[in-house]
Parts: sequence; C-alpha cells; structure tokens
Amino acid sequence: MTGIGRDVAFDDILAAAERLRGVAHRTPVVTSRTLDARTGGRVFLKCENLQRMGAFKFRGAYNRIAQLTDAERRRGVVAFSSGNHAQGVALAAQLLDVPAVIVMPSDAPAAKLAATREYGAEIIEYDRNTMNRNEIAARLALERGAALVPPYDDAAIIAGQGTVALELLQDVADLDVLVVCTGGGGLLAGCALAAVALRPEIAVYGVEPEAGDDFAQSFALGERVEIPVPQTIADGQQTTSPGELTFPIVKRLCAGILTVSDDGLRAAMRFAFERLKLVVEPSGAAALAALLDGKLDVSGKRVGAIISGGNVDAARYAAIISGG
Amino acid sequence: MTGIGRDVAFDDILAAAERLRGVAHRTPVVTSRTLDARTGGRVFLKCENLQRMGAFKFRGAYNRIAQLTDAERRRGVVAFSSGNHAQGVALAAQLLDVPAVIVMPSDAPAAKLAATREYGAEIIEYDRNTMNRNEIAARLALERGAALVPPYDDAAIIAGQGTVALELLQDVADLDVLVVCTGGGGLLAGCALAAVALRPEIAVYGVEPEAGDDFAQSFALGERVEIPVPQTIADGQQTTSPGELTFPIVKRLCAGILTVSDDGLRAAMRFAFERLKLVVEPSGAAALAALLDGKLDVSGKRVGAIISGGNVDAARYAAIISGG
Repeated sequence: MTGIGRDVAFDDILAAAERLRGVAHRTPVVTSRTLDARTGGRVFLKCENLQRMGAFKFRGAYNRIAQLTDAERRRGVVAFSSGNHAQGVALAAQLLDVPAVIVMPSDAPAAKLAATREYGAEIIEYDRNTMNRNEIAARLALERGAALVPPYDDAAIIAGQGTVALELLQDVADLDVLVVCTGGGGLLAGCALAAVALRPEIAVYGVEPEAGDDFAQSFALGERVEIPVPQTIADGQQTTSPGELTFPIVKRLCAGILTVSDDGLRAAMRFAFERLKLVVEPSGAAALAALLDGKLDVSGKRVGAIISGGNVDAARYAAIISGG
Repeated sequence: MTGIGRDVAFDDILAAAERLRGVAHRTPVVTSRTLDARTGGRVFLKCENLQRMGAFKFRGAYNRIAQLTDAERRRGVVAFSSGNHAQGVALAAQLLDVPAVIVMPSDAPAAKLAATREYGAEIIEYDRNTMNRNEIAARLALERGAALVPPYDDAAIIAGQGTVALELLQDVADLDVLVVCTGGGGLLAGCALAAVALRPEIAVYGVEPEAGDDFAQSFALGERVEIPVPQTIADGQQTTSPGELTFPIVKRLCAGILTVSDDGLRAAMRFAFERLKLVVEPSGAAALAALLDGKLDVSGKRVGAIISGGNVDAARYAAIISGG
C-alpha cells in the first residue's frame, strides 16, 4: 500500500532500488577539476540527465506503477506533468504494459511532448494559465477508472527518486553536503531521506529558481506557502507550492533552500556544455548553478550535486549555449 | 625507452593504466535502448568526451610526458595538433610541471585554442594549407632542446590511448565488436592492441570521415597511402596518412575500416544531444555515426564504441543540433 498520507521510510527506498535494478540506469558520477577550483570543494555530480528518458523522473514513476495491482494495471494510469514526469510515466507504463494518459500543458517543450507521445502514451493538452490540471487529471482518473500517478506527492514516487542519492552515497563515501534541485520536492525529499539515513551528519540543500521560491518561503515560514505560477526558464520547477507529503520531510531533514537566477541557470548549462560535455536542461542545472554562483560555502568540503535532467529543445539549448 | 620504432605491447598499456590511475578519469560507459533498437545490437558507449580536457588525448600525452627524464622535463615539450592533442599535452605538461609549446593550425576551433592557452601552454599558430607542421615543430624542438610529443606515432602515446579499450573491456565482458574512430591511428592502434589481447575473437573496426579515407585506402591496399588534406567537419580526423607505427598494428589486428559522411557525423551528434544528453564533437561521433548509419551489421551482437571527444565551439554545435 502506497500513496499520499503514508510516510516514507529508508526501507521503501531500498525496495525501490530493488525494483529499479536492471530497469533504470545506474547513472555515472562525474567530477571536474575546474568545478572544484571554482567552488573550493570536491564536487561529485550525479548525472540523472543520463537516466532513461533523460531525467530522474523515470525512477519514481516506475516504482509507483510497478506496485499497482493487476486490476489497476488493466485500467491504466493518468498523470499530469510539465514534462519529465510525463515521459517518466509514459516510459514506465510502456515497460510495464500499462495504458497511460498524460495531461500536459500546451506550452511544454516540444521535445518533451514528442518524447511522451513516442513512448506510446495518449496526451491531453491544457492551458496552464487558465485551467487546473489537478481537476482535469482527477476527472479523467474517475471517468476511466485509471490510477493517478502524481508527480511528487506520493510515497512510492518519493522512494523512487530517493534511489538517486542512495546510489550517489553508495558510490562516493563521506559526503559533507548534498545539493538537490526541487520543484514539488519529490527528488529533494527522497534524496534527503536516503542521504540522512546513510549519513546522518550530511547537510542537504534544495535549490529552486528565484522566481519560483515557494520552497524557500515555506521553509523559512515553517509551513507551505502558495505562489503564482512562476516565470522562469526552469520549466521543471514551475510549481506553486511544496507538496503536502514532501514538505514535512524537507522541513525535517534539510539544512536549507537556496535560490538561483535564470541567468545562473543559463551559465550553469553553458558550464556543463563547455566543461562537462553534458547536456543539461534549465531545471537540471539548478544545483550546479547554486555551486557555481557560490550560494553555499563548500570550501574544503565533499559535495554531492544532482544534475537532474537533460531534456531541452535543440533551438532553446542552442540559444542558451551561444550566450542567448 | 619509448618512441617511434619501438613496438607496443599489452604490458605497455597496463603500465600506462598504472600511470594514469587517479590522474585520468575512468570514464563511464553508457547504454541506450533507443540505440540498441536502431542497431539491433547491444551497444556500450565509452565516454571519452567526459575525459579530462574533453577527449581521450590526455591519456597518451600524460603517459608520454610522464616517462621523460628529469633533464628532458626541464627542457620542456613541443607538440603539433589540430586541437585535442594540443590540450592533452598542455594539461599533462601542466600537471607534470613541464613547459609546453604547442604548434596549432590557425583555423583550429576557437574553443580548442582557448583551452590550450588556459592550460598554460605557449601557442604558435601556422597555416595548415601552406606550411608543414612537422618541420615547424621539429625546428622548435631542435632550437629549444624540447622533446617532441607526436599526436599518434609514438609507443607511449599508443599505449596511453589503449587504456580506453582496456577500461571498456574490464567494465563490459564479452564484446563481439569494437568500433573506434581514427585520425592518425593512435586510439585505434592502442585500443586494438588492448582489445585483442583481452579478447582475441573481438572484431575491431576503425571509422574515419569519407573525405579523409586514408586509413580505408591504406587498409585495402595493405600499405600507407597519402591523400590531400581532407575537407570534413571532423577536425580531429584531417590526417593525410596513417601513422608509420600505428598502421602496421591496425593492419595486423583490425577487421576493417569504415567511413561515414559529414551528414552522418552531424546526425550522430544530434542523436547524442537528444538521446544521450552528451556533447560530442564531430570526430568524436564517428563510431556512433557508423553504427547509426548501419555501416556494420551488429544485430544480436555486443558492441563497444568509443565516443572520443566533446570539444566543439558553441556556435558550431548550436548550428549542428539545430539541423544546420
């Protein structure tokens, strides 16, 4: 039994890792002397942009859908997403032979819309400024009897995303700091759970765009704050509020929330292009941007940072690396 | 004692691996279900674009310079290169505290010129259409008493590059085929030596641009052929003849030489951007291009392929991934 309302434990992350074995990539960890020189620390980048479908989201989606009953699988799944969760659910559903309907904003990056279709999912588009996606998805789930796969507020999703930090800490011992981008908080909550379980003294930070600082505001206040849809190039972090399930975990386990500007995200994407030879999408560059911008003093420290995804339209990417 | 004229043995590659331990990155091997579906095989990509300075060239350069005597180190090194070898020598020399002069064509990619300068090397530019770089470099070596570090025709360089295949075969068992890009043949010869030593039944193929098929012609004829400077986007493969030392190794150990078009290289770079989230330079995409273009029937086979580098100007890369 999984779902909202149930707490997430380290054992759930271990169980997720078992489910994902041989299905998800165990993504590489890369280092850069240039990055170390820039930050003064020793930085280990966990490359979830090299995950299947190009982002960590596959982990949570697969972990969630794999736990459906046979009857639930036959009725299929519904998800709403600005992009990577859509692809994650579509691919996981395809692998598990489950029909999937994805509700996507009509202004989602073309590459993400196309990839989601390619994984065999049915797509329903909506206008993110005038329509409430949760209501659309809930109605669809009701009409079709399909199971809703939420993007972050779900124990199985959080546990799946937590396998990112689990692998990183298995591969790299003695991390002092872990920096994780956050939208709704699924990756951050899952990674905080895994990291603190394996290494209680670690300091885990979330990073979000300045324009979408709902997590930072909520963290400062101690309770969930709602903001308008943020205008940022980080299309994976346009959430308006931390998750109900993710926020208490983040509040309990994290050391703080950092914010980065869109320019900082662009500079981090260029750094990843020039120095790391990695394609990173705007949201995926948030943790790297926080380090490059000195948002945290990591001098002399061993720092894990998650590059969360690499799904970005060619035209947009071309403009950004060319300095646009 | 290293240098041209001396044969290269598998033990030299093992010794190079020891020298490079903790200095070079052990680069990750990535897989893609999409690539497997496209080729019908199971493909393992060794990501030397994620090597220090962005290409495999660092391995050979470091292995060569590390074997200089103290007196030779004080007099410094000279190298000639269209790009990545320059950076490899510059970085290796910097790490080993050896002065370096690099002779580079004036039309080398700006990113490669800048990076070479950044590693602290002195750069001398020349016109590749009217001047003979070997003569310039040899004169410089003579005037300054510096040791020449050739880009491929050197036992220590070949042994260093061979560590790429050594690592790949250590990480992935039972490869049937290995596909390696080739310019002068240092990477190909070194990888063929390592691969055949570890797995005698493996079929090793070289890949070069159609316009610069000096290796293919030479392989077909059984002796080294000289061609005019080839016009191709693969700036790392504009050699006019296989190496004196590399060719006999390739002739003895390889199964064949494949060629790919510039359009094939561009398509492979786009595939790497869209599907692999890896920045790959034109030459670095040659082995991938050969597989994507079906230049070799690999259905049902386990295939290693080397992505050799990722150093490409942002403007050029932007144009290529945008379909230009």
